[in-house]
Amino acid sequence: MTTPDSTLVRQKVAQARALLDEFDIDCWITFVRESAIMGDPCLPFLLGAEVTWHSAFVVSKALGASALVGHYDAPTVLDTGAYDRVESFVKDFDEPFAALMREIEPAQIALNYSVDSDICDGLTHGMFLTMHRLLDDLGMADRIVSAEPLIAALRERKTEPEITAIRAAIRHTEEIFAEVAGFIRPGRTEREIAAFMQEEVRRRGLDFAWPEPWCPAVFTGPNTAGAHYPPSERVVERGHVLNMDFGVVVDGYCSDLQRSFYVLEEGETAPPSEVLHGMDTIVESIARAKVCIKPGALGTAADAASREHVVAGGFEEFPAAVGHQVGRFAHDGFALLGPTWSKYGSKPTRPLEPGMVFTIEPRLSVPDRGVVTVEEMVVVTEDGAEWLSTPQTEIVVLPG
Amino acid sequence: MTTPDSTLVRQKVAQARALLDEFDIDCWITFVRESAIMGDPCLPFLLGAEVTWHSAFVVSKALGASALVGHYDAPTVLDTGAYDRVESFVKDFDEPFAALMREIEPAQIALNYSVDSDICDGLTHGMFLTMHRLLDDLGMADRIVSAEPLIAALRERKTEPEITAIRAAIRHTEEIFAEVAGFIRPGRTEREIAAFMQEEVRRRGLDFAWPEPWCPAVFTGPNTAGAHYPPSERVVERGHVLNMDFGVVVDGYCSDLQRSFYVLEEGETAPPSEVLHGMDTIVESIARAKVCIKPGALGTAADAASREHVVAGGFEEFPAAVGHQVGRFAHDGFALLGPTWSKYGSKPTRPLEPGMVFTIEPRLSVPDRGVVTVEEMVVVTEDGAEWLSTPQTEIVVLPG
Repeated sequence: MTTPDSTLVRQKVAQARALLDEFDIDCWITFVRESAIMGDPCLPFLLGAEVTWHSAFVVSKALGASALVGHYDAPTVLDTGAYDRVESFVKDFDEPFAALMREIEPAQIALNYSVDSDICDGLTHGMFLTMHRLLDDLGMADRIVSAEPLIAALRERKTEPEITAIRAAIRHTEEIFAEVAGFIRPGRTEREIAAFMQEEVRRRGLDFAWPEPWCPAVFTGPNTAGAHYPPSERVVERGHVLNMDFGVVVDGYCSDLQRSFYVLEEGETAPPSEVLHGMDTIVESIARAKVCIKPGALGTAADAASREHVVAGGFEEFPAAVGHQVGRFAHDGFALLGPTWSKYGSKPTRPLEPGMVFTIEPRLSVPDRGVVTVEEMVVVTEDGAEWLSTPQTEIVVLPG
Repeated sequence: MTTPDSTLVRQKVAQARALLDEFDIDCWITFVRESAIMGDPCLPFLLGAEVTWHSAFVVSKALGASALVGHYDAPTVLDTGAYDRVESFVKDFDEPFAALMREIEPAQIALNYSVDSDICDGLTHGMFLTMHRLLDDLGMADRIVSAEPLIAALRERKTEPEITAIRAAIRHTEEIFAEVAGFIRPGRTEREIAAFMQEEVRRRGLDFAWPEPWCPAVFTGPNTAGAHYPPSERVVERGHVLNMDFGVVVDGYCSDLQRSFYVLEEGETAPPSEVLHGMDTIVESIARAKVCIKPGALGTAADAASREHVVAGGFEEFPAAVGHQVGRFAHDGFALLGPTWSKYGSKPTRPLEPGMVFTIEPRLSVPDRGVVTVEEMVVVTEDGAEWLSTPQTEIVVLPG
């Protein structure tokens, strides 16, 4: 059989082989066991399935792509067509692994750990200790380096099929936002609105970009719980702003968009000036971030441009980075459009590259009305950034 | 709101507090970020949702249950009702974490890493390096120990609600196996049989116990790919044995069962003697394993009893452990019913305890017919083991 993602695996393994030269790494090892429990985020690029016993996916200058996996997992690895050599074992991993490493004799051995980047940090500490012991027995422990630059490039420099999948996910998301606009009215609860959208996701045969209990996240009116919280029994009221955070998955790739709506008061024909000012501020804040996004720029520039415009508009600054990358996860990649806060480490100061896909998502609170927030998606091109989403330029006005 | 799993979280956090004394650990820290990407397997016991920024769930003798999480995640943690203290941060994790640790001043600091147990190994190496730096700055780095015994006990000593959920998952699985028996006939493909069962899983509103492409796994006839492989276009033939590996999830807990079927040849009224001998060998092999399962016994005993009976029956020994634990994952827990092969580390020599839920799943190949395999589930009681599944005692005979 062909695994569903075997085309992706062949492309990504080929991409990884090319990256060895760029980053001067002789050998990259992804080392994983029981991946259903703790799956390295690189595994979809290397296999597109789960493994059970200790498994090493070894990309090296000397031997190309090799895999050493448990007996039952070998057929799946072979089927990808991405590996020059697939070995399997029943009782003991250590000896065949040692033989493989003696054959490669690498000068650098890159492992999947990173202090600064969650997405490059797929090796558990227990598995690191095992790998360290194995390499120490071979006199190679001092050759261990972090695979951070290689993994980051592999995820961030998206291929055309990856971008195509993201575009498709965005299109579905925008369509569902358009459909739900006709459903939102005073008296509906956040949960009812979420259920309407989730039913549409199922009808289209899609997956959710993050766990279903808060996908979409729906917030209506002032004093909501803030991002990352499930929809509640709170009802839509006239004169309130409602915002939603929502994404779906197509062919393994996510969308992540936010849209804002205003429900007219009786007798109103347009939102009040403070809501319009809030929305204009968000739209301009996104535009100012977008022009800062180009190869070689730092994410700090886009974040600062967006953040300063929100503050200049008279609003409190938002308590998060203005944008993150999107890929197989709604939060993906290493580089971030963010401030140099301690918790972000080096993410905001990593230069941008073509092929990175970012959100731009400033937010602000309009007193007594609710949170105005819009999240768009862009891809970094050779000389700037291109919209992937269709930008929201005005707040969606709903009858009261 | 109440998170769907907040009852479980309150029970498990209370259980963890009690385990601190048993294992002489002052403080247990689960340290995680972007859990949608790499989620510690303990997180469903500590939160039942995802977190984004650096988050520490700290269970200590001094302060009980504390959590330090990002701004947006704090409401979700508060809602569990399991924490005595919830702190949140916007820019910097390090300082509030240091303050918390100075207040606790623990003699031992248990972290989630393990060489031998995948399920106790939820801390990534990059996060270990960060935690080591933070504790080193406090002069506490030499107090780090593995949380392996605590986590293992927390997962393995199942509470009554956990067993109840597993029983419900098993009941659904057995019902779906009974339904599909009427669907299997010569000419049907493995994929058609799998699709029939998957449709039933969806109709019942259940989740799959492992990724859907190979849940169920369906194997018909001789020379199949072996376990962990998706259903193929291979068709059911008269005179062949068909086996399936299948599980579902109820309230977060899995089932994992295998059943074997035989399709009569034209004119046959019963399976041939070699198939009957194979099935009898499996049934007796399971019975012999079950009597070895009791508190204080080692998993090696059950594995050896089952394995020896298969070999004594004239069959090749199976290339895997005879049984694993089941819980929130289809493969769960630390102790294993297995041989002392290098790759299993100390899993097979960890004494059994009441509340552990195990599969028993010997397998053998009948030449020219196919693989006969049955997987049952048992729970360890105070003085032995009790069936959770309804044991298959005869091969299911299907008309040709």
